[in-house]
Amino acid sequence: MNAVEPLSLLSSAAPVAIPAYTASGHEVFLFEMAWERRLPLLLKGPTGSGKTRFVAHMAARLGLPLFTVACHDDLSAADLTGRHLLKGGETVWVDGPLTRAVREGGLCYLDEIVEARKDVAVVLHPLTDDRRILPLERTGELLSAPASFMVIVSYNPGYQNLLKSLKPSTRQRFVSITFDFLPRDREISVVARESGLDEAAVAPLVDVARRLRTLKGQDIEEGVSTRLIVYAASLIAAGVAPHDAVTAAIIEPLTDDPEVKVGLAEITRAVLG
Amino acid sequence: MNAVEPLSLLSSAAPVAIPAYTASGHEVFLFEMAWERRLPLLLKGPTGSGKTRFVAHMAARLGLPLFTVACHDDLSAADLTGRHLLKGGETVWVDGPLTRAVREGGLCYLDEIVEARKDVAVVLHPLTDDRRILPLERTGELLSAPASFMVIVSYNPGYQNLLKSLKPSTRQRFVSITFDFLPRDREISVVARESGLDEAAVAPLVDVARRLRTLKGQDIEEGVSTRLIVYAASLIAAGVAPHDAVTAAIIEPLTDDPEVKVGLAEITRAVLG
Amino acid sequence: MNAVEPLSLLSSAAPVAIPAYTASGHEVFLFEMAWERRLPLLLKGPTGSGKTRFVAHMAARLGLPLFTVACHDDLSAADLTGRHLLKGGETVWVDGPLTRAVREGGLCYLDEIVEARKDVAVVLHPLTDDRRILPLERTGELLSAPASFMVIVSYNPGYQNLLKSLKPSTRQRFVSITFDFLPRDREISVVARESGLDEAAVAPLVDVARRLRTLKGQDIEEGVSTRLIVYAASLIAAGVAPHDAVTAAIIEPLTDDPEVKVGLAEITRAVLG
Amino acid sequence: MNAVEPLSLLSSAAPVAIPAYTASGHEVFLFEMAWERRLPLLLKGPTGSGKTRFVAHMAARLGLPLFTVACHDDLSAADLTGRHLLKGGETVWVDGPLTRAVREGGLCYLDEIVEARKDVAVVLHPLTDDRRILPLERTGELLSAPASFMVIVSYNPGYQNLLKSLKPSTRQRFVSITFDFLPRDREISVVARESGLDEAAVAPLVDVARRLRTLKGQDIEEGVSTRLIVYAASLIAAGVAPHDAVTAAIIEPLTDDPEVKVGLAEITRAVLG
Amino acid sequence: MNAVEPLSLLSSAAPVAIPAYTASGHEVFLFEMAWERRLPLLLKGPTGSGKTRFVAHMAARLGLPLFTVACHDDLSAADLTGRHLLKGGETVWVDGPLTRAVREGGLCYLDEIVEARKDVAVVLHPLTDDRRILPLERTGELLSAPASFMVIVSYNPGYQNLLKSLKPSTRQRFVSITFDFLPRDREISVVARESGLDEAAVAPLVDVARRLRTLKGQDIEEGVSTRLIVYAASLIAAGVAPHDAVTAAIIEPLTDDPEVKVGLAEITRAVLG
Amino acid sequence: MNAVEPLSLLSSAAPVAIPAYTASGHEVFLFEMAWERRLPLLLKGPTGSGKTRFVAHMAARLGLPLFTVACHDDLSAADLTGRHLLKGGETVWVDGPLTRAVREGGLCYLDEIVEARKDVAVVLHPLTDDRRILPLERTGELLSAPASFMVIVSYNPGYQNLLKSLKPSTRQRFVSITFDFLPRDREISVVARESGLDEAAVAPLVDVARRLRTLKGQDIEEGVSTRLIVYAASLIAAGVAPHDAVTAAIIEPLTDDPEVKVGLAEITRAVLG
Repeated sequence: MNAVEPLSLLSSAAPVAIPAYTASGHEVFLFEMAWERRLPLLLKGPTGSGKTRFVAHMAARLGLPLFTVACHDDLSAADLTGRHLLKGGETVWVDGPLTRAVREGGLCYLDEIVEARKDVAVVLHPLTDDRRILPLERTGELLSAPASFMVIVSYNPGYQNLLKSLKPSTRQRFVSITFDFLPRDREISVVARESGLDEAAVAPLVDVARRLRTLKGQDIEEGVSTRLIVYAASLIAAGVAPHDAVTAAIIEPLTDDPEVKVGLAEITRAVLG
Repeated sequence: MNAVEPLSLLSSAAPVAIPAYTASGHEVFLFEMAWERRLPLLLKGPTGSGKTRFVAHMAARLGLPLFTVACHDDLSAADLTGRHLLKGGETVWVDGPLTRAVREGGLCYLDEIVEARKDVAVVLHPLTDDRRILPLERTGELLSAPASFMVIVSYNPGYQNLLKSLKPSTRQRFVSITFDFLPRDREISVVARESGLDEAAVAPLVDVARRLRTLKGQDIEEGVSTRLIVYAASLIAAGVAPHDAVTAAIIEPLTDDPEVKVGLAEITRAVLG
Repeated sequence: MNAVEPLSLLSSAAPVAIPAYTASGHEVFLFEMAWERRLPLLLKGPTGSGKTRFVAHMAARLGLPLFTVACHDDLSAADLTGRHLLKGGETVWVDGPLTRAVREGGLCYLDEIVEARKDVAVVLHPLTDDRRILPLERTGELLSAPASFMVIVSYNPGYQNLLKSLKPSTRQRFVSITFDFLPRDREISVVARESGLDEAAVAPLVDVARRLRTLKGQDIEEGVSTRLIVYAASLIAAGVAPHDAVTAAIIEPLTDDPEVKVGLAEITRAVLG
Repeated sequence: MNAVEPLSLLSSAAPVAIPAYTASGHEVFLFEMAWERRLPLLLKGPTGSGKTRFVAHMAARLGLPLFTVACHDDLSAADLTGRHLLKGGETVWVDGPLTRAVREGGLCYLDEIVEARKDVAVVLHPLTDDRRILPLERTGELLSAPASFMVIVSYNPGYQNLLKSLKPSTRQRFVSITFDFLPRDREISVVARESGLDEAAVAPLVDVARRLRTLKGQDIEEGVSTRLIVYAASLIAAGVAPHDAVTAAIIEPLTDDPEVKVGLAEITRAVLG
Repeated sequence: MNAVEPLSLLSSAAPVAIPAYTASGHEVFLFEMAWERRLPLLLKGPTGSGKTRFVAHMAARLGLPLFTVACHDDLSAADLTGRHLLKGGETVWVDGPLTRAVREGGLCYLDEIVEARKDVAVVLHPLTDDRRILPLERTGELLSAPASFMVIVSYNPGYQNLLKSLKPSTRQRFVSITFDFLPRDREISVVARESGLDEAAVAPLVDVARRLRTLKGQDIEEGVSTRLIVYAASLIAAGVAPHDAVTAAIIEPLTDDPEVKVGLAEITRAVLG
Repeated sequence: MNAVEPLSLLSSAAPVAIPAYTASGHEVFLFEMAWERRLPLLLKGPTGSGKTRFVAHMAARLGLPLFTVACHDDLSAADLTGRHLLKGGETVWVDGPLTRAVREGGLCYLDEIVEARKDVAVVLHPLTDDRRILPLERTGELLSAPASFMVIVSYNPGYQNLLKSLKPSTRQRFVSITFDFLPRDREISVVARESGLDEAAVAPLVDVARRLRTLKGQDIEEGVSTRLIVYAASLIAAGVAPHDAVTAAIIEPLTDDPEVKVGLAEITRAVLG
């Protein structure tokens, strides 16, 4: 049991190695331009296309603290800005990750923002126009964001629906970049580096994944992420048979439907031999 | 961690430069007349048509403190009027932005009021008829608004639906002004001033935006805001190629639909050359 | 920041000028008869037909304190009866407006009662039959209403629907009066008195409003309130051109529909000349 | 502002005059038999058919304290059994009306029980079978009801629907009596006694009400209660013209529909002359 | 007002007379076998078929404390396991009935478990497989159930629907017994014993109930419980006429429908003579 | 009543006997490979196919503490990560089971994760990619998972629907294994070992279960779990007749439908003889 120690750091402000990142387009250049001009950024793309890794990479490259928030149904504005807690009979205020990013001049990354409650989008409004302010109604403060502060949000366009989407009044505050999977050669080298399996053994796994991605929207809800290929390669490197590894790390995570599984297994056999 | 300091100021009461504002009609005159006659004001208009900037401009021009509240699904009357907090074992009352505007005789601006909970509209009723009072049930106070106090609300008529609209008993308490985008020449000079790009380079961007605005309600949900044109111009001024800048700052923020993106890109090429 | 001072007065018990009120029927006589016989009163009528002003007028005329509550979706019985608050480590009880009206023998007016939560209607039941009592479960008190206590509720029949209506077991506890707009001559003199514009200039504004009221249920949701005519007249008195004043103070508050606006503007031109 | 004084009495245990009650059947005998055999009682009947008055009458006749609870959407089991409150830094328990009725051996009357939350019905179960116990999970007590304790519940069968009805496992715990309006002669004498108007003048009012009751389910939702006839008679006794009194006290409380009002007024004229 | 005394007993651990119970099958033997083998038990059957009485009988027969919980819509896991309360400035933990049954090695009976919130079923899972443990996340305890601890749950299959049913992962943890009404002769002797009316007078009442039970699912929602027959017999023993007793104690509790009441009354007359 | 002692252990870190587990495939090898490579694991399979037992077996085999959470509708992220409690006037933080598993380097098993609230899946995201971190917003800590920490989740694919399913962004973070019932011979020996009944008597019970499993999706919602066969065998070993044991332990837990029960009883008689 720990007493509240709100000053310990959630951010990665301490010097860290820059996470490896393999660019698929000019996204690094666009990010830097947006950051220089103080423009908020929206990243769009499917699961596992590297959005989160990209943001971590850019934060380290720019030498800025990064505050990441994974959004969900119950995430509210107060989770971003902060709350009052009781301490020693006094009400004390504890900053949330957005407030800390403003105070420290870092990056605040809201992953899958369309999942969050609507007031989360609204709290970003005064920070994402020319005012660049964060009013904290509960403490009576009005914070001005320093030049190095930047808001980045992301979502997967494949999930959006009428209930869960960004309103135009929010969307039109962000410069946007669309992400997609890496090209074949670069994906092979990324998987080989992360799994420890050699590229020759990785290549057919990437080919299986690329075949299965063409089924998106038909038999499977979402394309195979690079992460799942890394999983399969890791299991093979650990001694699991290739077919068992693909079943456990790629096919089973994609679907529960017995007939679809059979179809995916046939495609796998055709590619892996 | 900060102790509660509720007396620090959220308003812009301190002397500030008057924010630049380019009028599109006689809205400045109407605002002043409404303020003189103590009539509440409703601003209607699309995203990025300058409502928020206009209110900031008028507050500075009249030398009045401005309290801005961005409304959302969870915003309730208590967020406007105030709350009790525990401090040193005592329950203390902390004014909300509406109460502060009443006490200090400033402007209270509720942005996108149709998003707020229904009790927010109701708390405005006694302040927006001849009574001009704010009863605070929780503290037992009955505040009379000074002559300089004014309520301004806004919403985007394009979003309204059956669930989210102002009731006639609320609407009929406000003098109303409808906003639209600036005329071509004035929009070009605003974008040039804010982005640092020269007017000759800005003009085709404004033309692209004006073409895309004609698609509202068909392929895109909302017209291109002036802000997005500023974004695109800023990226170009920072060295991004014009087509990339328009893609990142105008097309991607407008839609996630791949086919619509292709259509918008074709229009852009036709205009930009 | 203020410490809780629950004894300050919300009511208008202090001597005040009797608010001007222009009767449209025998409502003053009926109110006095109901008050003498201790019968609860229900006022029905459209927005801006003078219900709230009428109640304020009658309270001043009878010399009784008036406690007005604007009802909304989140208003609960506890908001009317009272709550416990923490003070100096003790739980103290703070009366709500209904309880105060019972203790002081005044009028309690619940405006738009159909908007409130269902428990609000129920808390009125023992006060609106021959028992005339208010049980406070939370404090263990059983208050008997003095002879001068009276409950008045109101709503707009035009808004009612299946979800928001008074149950017969509640409705059948009230003597009821239906309100409508003032006759032409009396409305002209009221608008002239409140706006400072002379009656000759007010008359065409009232004629416009009367024409538009005939469209209720077709193009517009609710008829033009007298308040909006006062707004338009006030703007004209302040120097705004009559067509601009009618647009800002009457047409825009009535509708967001561009085609309907055009229609209303044509009617206005036909009447104003 | 009052400190919590939970020992003050909500019940009418102090000696009171027995409220006048005019029986319409053998309900007094059945109530006494049920009370003697410790059987719970369910009263069914329309608004204003005298259920609440009957219970008050029986409580006074049996010399027992009566705890009446008007049920509503937000009424929960804790509102009946009790709650913990903070007092002087200690958590203290305050009995609810059901617990007090059990401890004091009185009557507990739950009016319109189908409106309450479902846990209210469940808390009655162990009190309404042979166990006759009230477990208070929050205090760890297990109360046995004394012989004089009795549960009475009521509802209006005309309101019930799928969402709001008693489950058979609850219903089958109660002996039941159905109430209806009084016969013509007895209703005339009750109205005359309560309004002060002589019987000859009351008779046509009762005849109007009886005619209108035949319209229930067609034009009006619920039949005219005896209370409304008393209201109309009271207004007439106070000097209001009979047609105005019937309009204000009977027709307006029944409906908001203009056409239905015209129809009811015609019927009234036909009967009153 | 009582301070919290959480150590007083809710259970019937003190020596009590064994409640009378008339077995309808081999349920006593099955209960004992399940208890010996530490198997959880599910009782299914209609209202008033004796499930609650049976459990009380078995608890007394086995000499074990019994903790009964009547489940409802708002019953959550914390109501079963326990809560923290403030006492003397400290947070103290108060066991719920399930936790107490585990600590004391008694029976925990959850009546109508399908009514409870879903987390109630889940909290039973580790207690109803070979682990027989109760983790208390809030206190950090991990309780092992002693050999004498047993979980019994019940529900009425006639009420189940898609929203309110036990998931197979919960159902498949219980040995199950289905209850039905007693055979005619045994039901007559039970009613006679409990009402004090002689068997000859009880017999036609039981015959009426058996006739009415055949209408279940057609005109009435649920069959007549034995309890209602006892009510009718009790009223007759107290001097009420048989037809009036059947109306008040059997027909009115079954239905509110006037036509169905007429039909049931005809059946009653045909049987009673 | 116990004061809060949050340091007592919920986990099975103390040396325990390794729970018996009969493997049906290569799941033990896959689990160990996933654990070595720090890959999260998803177990899919029907009720009673041994998922929970398998996890307990692996935890003991690897000598790691196991934190099991049975998920349900109201389980939120805070239930996993921890909460603040009041203690001695101070707010203290108490770790939840996920946080404890991270701090101690153990296994955290979320059973039926699709039942939990959506924020539960999100809190797992940073723990199930290469970051392997757990940010505790409420305490300001950022925990890095030690090498021995592992997340295991499970669900039953038969229950999934549109509202309750894992999003691809969550699913694609897990290596997955599908469970099914044991082969006949191994199931017979498991049931014999756990019930004490000899294998010859167990065999027909397993045959009945295997016949009934073929009806899944037609007459019964879920196949017979091995646990239910153990229940039936236990009752027979205790002296219950085989048909009665199968009725109470297998048929009644499967269905409430009288016709389906008759069908299952016929199948049972055909197999048992």
